[in-house]
Amino acid sequence: MPPKAKDKIKGKMKHKTKDKMKDNAMTLSPSDAADLMASWTRRARAVKPVMAVSSETDRNNALMAAAMLIHQHHDEIINANTRDVKAAQAAEMKAAFIDRLTLDHDRIEAMAKGLEDIAALPDPLGRVLDQWDRPNGLDISRVATPLGVLGVIYEARPNVTIDAAGLAVKSGNAVILRGGSSSIHTATVLAGLMRDGLIQHGLPADCVQLVDNTDRALVGAMLAATGAIDVIIPRGGKSLVERVQNDARVPVFAHLEGICHVYIDADADLDKARAISLNAKMRRVGICGAAETLLVDRAVAAEMLPAIAEDLMAAGCALRGDADSRALIPSADAAEDGDWSTEYLDAIISVRLVDGVKGAMAHIERYSSAHTETIITENTATAETFLTGVDSAIVMVNASTQFADGGEFGMGAEIGISTGRMHARGPVGADQLTSFKYVVRGNGQVRP
Amino acid sequence: MPPKAKDKIKGKMKHKTKDKMKDNAMTLSPSDAADLMASWTRRARAVKPVMAVSSETDRNNALMAAAMLIHQHHDEIINANTRDVKAAQAAEMKAAFIDRLTLDHDRIEAMAKGLEDIAALPDPLGRVLDQWDRPNGLDISRVATPLGVLGVIYEARPNVTIDAAGLAVKSGNAVILRGGSSSIHTATVLAGLMRDGLIQHGLPADCVQLVDNTDRALVGAMLAATGAIDVIIPRGGKSLVERVQNDARVPVFAHLEGICHVYIDADADLDKARAISLNAKMRRVGICGAAETLLVDRAVAAEMLPAIAEDLMAAGCALRGDADSRALIPSADAAEDGDWSTEYLDAIISVRLVDGVKGAMAHIERYSSAHTETIITENTATAETFLTGVDSAIVMVNASTQFADGGEFGMGAEIGISTGRMHARGPVGADQLTSFKYVVRGNGQVRP
Repeated sequence: MPPKAKDKIKGKMKHKTKDKMKDNAMTLSPSDAADLMASWTRRARAVKPVMAVSSETDRNNALMAAAMLIHQHHDEIINANTRDVKAAQAAEMKAAFIDRLTLDHDRIEAMAKGLEDIAALPDPLGRVLDQWDRPNGLDISRVATPLGVLGVIYEARPNVTIDAAGLAVKSGNAVILRGGSSSIHTATVLAGLMRDGLIQHGLPADCVQLVDNTDRALVGAMLAATGAIDVIIPRGGKSLVERVQNDARVPVFAHLEGICHVYIDADADLDKARAISLNAKMRRVGICGAAETLLVDRAVAAEMLPAIAEDLMAAGCALRGDADSRALIPSADAAEDGDWSTEYLDAIISVRLVDGVKGAMAHIERYSSAHTETIITENTATAETFLTGVDSAIVMVNASTQFADGGEFGMGAEIGISTGRMHARGPVGADQLTSFKYVVRGNGQVRP
Repeated sequence: MPPKAKDKIKGKMKHKTKDKMKDNAMTLSPSDAADLMASWTRRARAVKPVMAVSSETDRNNALMAAAMLIHQHHDEIINANTRDVKAAQAAEMKAAFIDRLTLDHDRIEAMAKGLEDIAALPDPLGRVLDQWDRPNGLDISRVATPLGVLGVIYEARPNVTIDAAGLAVKSGNAVILRGGSSSIHTATVLAGLMRDGLIQHGLPADCVQLVDNTDRALVGAMLAATGAIDVIIPRGGKSLVERVQNDARVPVFAHLEGICHVYIDADADLDKARAISLNAKMRRVGICGAAETLLVDRAVAAEMLPAIAEDLMAAGCALRGDADSRALIPSADAAEDGDWSTEYLDAIISVRLVDGVKGAMAHIERYSSAHTETIITENTATAETFLTGVDSAIVMVNASTQFADGGEFGMGAEIGISTGRMHARGPVGADQLTSFKYVVRGNGQVRP
């Protein structure tokens, strides 16, 4: 690393330590916060035209350079992270929180690898999404362009800094990162390395900016920065996402939660039904694509449910069933009304018998968070009814809901899974961080 | 028309007359307005799953039926419109407002023809936007779906009722229409005919709902209806659009204004430059795609600007130039700073000399409303620099900005031109009123 870049990081970290005293306090007035936020958004908007015409090679080289810098600055990253972790321990944060915050060798290598993977993706910019000619000779095409300025609001997870910045650079956007105060030392080092990677390849460092002031009023200022920030992407727990969704005046890519359903149809193959139910719930219980409710066609419940339930219980999963399903699996607890709307993120699943695919679809229409649902069936017509009629970001047949992931979709990396319907839906990768424009080529046409 | 449908329209009209007394007053409290608005959004959301699986044939037949009903109810439409026009005259509204409000035989036929054109468009739903296979055998496709519930807020223009409802039906969305109180009688008849067309083909009438209460608090309630309305589309003057943009918590497709630029490059063909400048400004001066600023490369200004200016002035256009351009066209008035940001919508154009394509792009970056810009040049490299570097919804080479129109683009009909970058950009037609979902087809895959 050149000495200059090193100084910059150190300088920033020193500055940070002072700010850290304020922690997550809210001391700025809304108008002061807005003025301060404008200093970041002005810089972000200034790099916008530069990034829009940047070459694919420069953007990819900057990502590869940042990956290399992460390798080279391994110890500095660990040191900064140790400060954050110690502060979190002193503040008696929960073990899961501290785990998410903590970096080790493998996690650092995974961040670098993530940037290399993003660099290897096809260029999301300049893609010709559509092209046609008009009778008057005009040639019209729809071409992918950067979205503009992204605002990412997140909590402790350090890898969000790298993932979000990497996807932003790839897609020619400027990004303003506002991480939690608990990971500020780690985020400062990581954002500094991303900026150094940009500088090394002649791209503007301000493509990646970290809000190095943890006053909470600045979150409000980001959410209100219409015209200056094009989209806000919240990454974190339900309360963060809800606050962003409620307060934002800027458009938001949000995902509130993943209440994902597995529906076992009368024409299901029992082996597939068992394997997929077990995997959808238990492979990892804490991810948004984990199943939370098992729906079983009443017609085959006696035949199929006991075996599926046995697999789940053997894996340590608790069952909460409606009265009809408990008649078949007596060891299950009784489900309450709230269970159908609960994202457990835990080894618990709610179980309900339904009347065929229509019954399953009605339950899903009412309780789903429109994230991911799967039907297990060998009947193609029933599958198509489900795939067409269920309005969720991802609908599946004979596959585990845990495939709901940008990497598993082949998108390389994702910044989250959107449950909204505007602009991006499902995994949000580099392509989803683009807009488009119409390019019209004529040879002198005037409109009659 | 069956007697039942006729009664319904009459019934609604009677109801309306009473409401009309309140005019545009704001008497409802925000919470009462929210409760009342929920009665429309609840009905809209209830038809959502039905419309999502409706057949293309039924939707097109409903549009054709509504077109036929418009022909058949010509006199009733004229009568209702006459009431609105008389009220507007009594309220001493401006002539341009009354002209926009007034329907005649040709305008009524054009509305019916518009519905027939929309019916003839390809189905926007179910389009496979992308498809790929994964190494594990999963087949993934991205398929177009309805967006959900549209809220359209507009002013006097009666045809917006038909255009918006027609595009909503075509794209399987439910629409809640809130027109201005000044066109309420006309809008009530037209919306009733759209609903009758839906009923005739077994589709839910509540796919098209008119807010038959002109209390202004209901506009606020629409703008705040997050989760119940998916997108708001304002159609009207700058102040309406600005209010919507400022107050909406629901995502908005908006277009604030069209400050469109024509740039005459050093390598322009003079004949094309003259024809396009004249057409871009003067074909119709009141549309958003009309040019408002002419930029001329300093290198050829002496050679080209006088002829272009002469054409414009001969057509009745006033010129407002910077000092350099006025040296070449002395009869032009002096442009003031505000001219570069003004959408005249009138026979006025601002003129400025710039230093080549970079100078033109810098001016556009600063003053454009990101609607439509065109470059006149025979130099392909210069054209590509402009097309790539200018971040507007529509960028053109050697074509008139007046082609910025969904019909001219071959989209059939449009509900406006979006100058935003989220979801829809440029002309918003039936395709742009869709979202998508991922459909994943497996044969028992579980995630490792």
